[in-house]
Amino acid sequence: MTIKDKTAIVGVGTTDFYKRGQSGEQTELELMCKATLEALDDCGLKAQDIDGFSFYSGGFDAGLLATTLGIKELRYSSIMSGGGGGSQGTIANAAAAIAAGYAEVILCTKALKSGGETGRRIGRMGAEPRTGRLSGGVADWDFYHNFGLTSPGQSFALMARQHMHKFGTTSEQFGAVAVSTRYHASRNPKAIHQTPITIEDHQNSRMIADPLHLLDYCLETDGGTAVIVTSAERAKDLKAKPVYVMGAAIGGPGPFGQGIFYHQMPDEMYHWSGHKPVADRLFAMAGIGPNDVDVAEMYDHFTPLVIMQLEEYGFCKPGEGGPYVEDGGIQWGKGRMPVNTHGGNLSEVYLLGLTHTIEGVRQLRGQSTSQVENAEIALITSGPGILPTSAIILRN
Amino acid sequence: MTIKDKTAIVGVGTTDFYKRGQSGEQTELELMCKATLEALDDCGLKAQDIDGFSFYSGGFDAGLLATTLGIKELRYSSIMSGGGGGSQGTIANAAAAIAAGYAEVILCTKALKSGGETGRRIGRMGAEPRTGRLSGGVADWDFYHNFGLTSPGQSFALMARQHMHKFGTTSEQFGAVAVSTRYHASRNPKAIHQTPITIEDHQNSRMIADPLHLLDYCLETDGGTAVIVTSAERAKDLKAKPVYVMGAAIGGPGPFGQGIFYHQMPDEMYHWSGHKPVADRLFAMAGIGPNDVDVAEMYDHFTPLVIMQLEEYGFCKPGEGGPYVEDGGIQWGKGRMPVNTHGGNLSEVYLLGLTHTIEGVRQLRGQSTSQVENAEIALITSGPGILPTSAIILRN
Repeated sequence: MTIKDKTAIVGVGTTDFYKRGQSGEQTELELMCKATLEALDDCGLKAQDIDGFSFYSGGFDAGLLATTLGIKELRYSSIMSGGGGGSQGTIANAAAAIAAGYAEVILCTKALKSGGETGRRIGRMGAEPRTGRLSGGVADWDFYHNFGLTSPGQSFALMARQHMHKFGTTSEQFGAVAVSTRYHASRNPKAIHQTPITIEDHQNSRMIADPLHLLDYCLETDGGTAVIVTSAERAKDLKAKPVYVMGAAIGGPGPFGQGIFYHQMPDEMYHWSGHKPVADRLFAMAGIGPNDVDVAEMYDHFTPLVIMQLEEYGFCKPGEGGPYVEDGGIQWGKGRMPVNTHGGNLSEVYLLGLTHTIEGVRQLRGQSTSQVENAEIALITSGPGILPTSAIILRN
Repeated sequence: MTIKDKTAIVGVGTTDFYKRGQSGEQTELELMCKATLEALDDCGLKAQDIDGFSFYSGGFDAGLLATTLGIKELRYSSIMSGGGGGSQGTIANAAAAIAAGYAEVILCTKALKSGGETGRRIGRMGAEPRTGRLSGGVADWDFYHNFGLTSPGQSFALMARQHMHKFGTTSEQFGAVAVSTRYHASRNPKAIHQTPITIEDHQNSRMIADPLHLLDYCLETDGGTAVIVTSAERAKDLKAKPVYVMGAAIGGPGPFGQGIFYHQMPDEMYHWSGHKPVADRLFAMAGIGPNDVDVAEMYDHFTPLVIMQLEEYGFCKPGEGGPYVEDGGIQWGKGRMPVNTHGGNLSEVYLLGLTHTIEGVRQLRGQSTSQVENAEIALITSGPGILPTSAIILRN
């Protein structure tokens, strides 16, 4: 009993991409609807055909979106847990809801305005949070916020340092992730940053949270994304070539709280992205292994987390992710398996994860600007370091 | 392809029930965990066996709950949309996730503290909201908040008035719902209000939002609830008699926004609870009709909505819900099919919906304090007037 091959992604769309705050008067609703119209056009469906929503990272008002899109009847709407960790979980929920018989055409969508949602979050770039976040005694952040650990960058810096300490991983290796990803962005006309960078540029970029430089960080940007999922049966008759959901998995390493940087995390797990148990279940459901994957779109909010994910998905051995990414190891036209061929969160745009799904779909349709020849199977992952995170495997 | 009979509810639990604010220093996390321990004890599973969470109405921090419960590995966590409308949707999501192969033992849980979540909501009892809620131009409430329509009670009063206007439904018929429900609470030692009331008491109770009296309103209370769902296969070996999920459905009447009181709602739908399309799909999935239902636990935040749901689920004809509930029509020991045998949101406790699921399970196990003889099939519904709402059918 699994969702393997029962559903397919049939439509994808985005808005234009904007630097932080440059989406102007457009609301999140407007960005979401614009991306949705592009996704509908992509598959030849009409808004009225949508009968379900799958959200993540705070979700959205289902009634408001349904009314605005003018859909006929809403039959499903839910929100995957886990911030950016839930991005591929939206596809997982959509697939499960369709297989469950609840709905038939599910819209997965997310829009982000840096002046909006992101602005309300704890300061990603290392700043203090805008308002004091104290939980009243029940949440994990009470254990580190008051000691000055207030941003995701600071927390992931600790994990990166642990990986360096344990395995000899270097800042230049983190830089190799940034360089390859920017190279892919340089080939993508929609990407926000298209000027190639070098390891030297990375090393010279401002230190934000030691050992993380500015170029180890994802962007802060605005935009909207939409992905339409339907049954494998219905997918056959649509305009776009179906991209089947071979597998989906959700979870993380044990019960360790909000962020892998949770205070109870044992030392020996502190260099994990948290994807290991997700990877094991995902490959088992899809019935394939890492060697079968042609292209991977891996959530890259911070460069070291790509290295950790490469290890945990079995593309290299534990601790060997650093050497693996050196010298174009994950670069299109160089490495065996390119990673983040759209330019990722680091260089294309940072919209919390569905741009990775969309790039995976484009690869399997032969539409990427850094197209992997004869790509048949794509792995897409969600934000590591959050419980739960999630991932999917797609095939054409 | 549906979830019919693939999963079962195997454990249920609650905390003690408290009047508004009387749960003292207990946090929502604490209430949630206490209810969960009772549910685990009910089925003979351990916290470590739980591998998924299903939330609704704002959800909860999955990592924090996983860490607190000490579970081994989290494999699923999501939040059904729709406030109290999502309560049975948590069971739907759990069933879908298990059938999808994501997780095996899913905890559905909700805790409510009136000083907490409810206190932050728009004033249920007719009061102005504590803070001005203006959306910045994107949400439906901008169309009525500034004209003084600020509470759910006021909005549902308009729907109640429309039902009276169209079908001749009376305030005494609303009262009949309150009286039957209180009668069931009087037989339930855990219920907050156990003193029986009469139609006269109802008529003499304070008018809050014409035509709704105080006794047409649900309670404002504190407490925690937990329901454990697993595969039908695994359910066989557990301590409690499995209660199978025959069907689940989510949705509402078209695209009409947050609350059925949305400004674009056509007049002819204004006396709907919004359950009609959910009812049709639910019965179709379960393969039964209203005559097969032995007991119904219907979300009763306001008495007229029970009348509307009885019509929309086909227990009587449209417009005939008023006469149907008169003279103990939905009362245990009198009517054909008792409704809210635990005392409902009106008289037992108001915890946003899982108490109805729990009472349905108890009926099918023969454990209710107002036990329907040989009850085999139960219908459980979620908060009407919200898009999406949801409902499930259970069997023993």
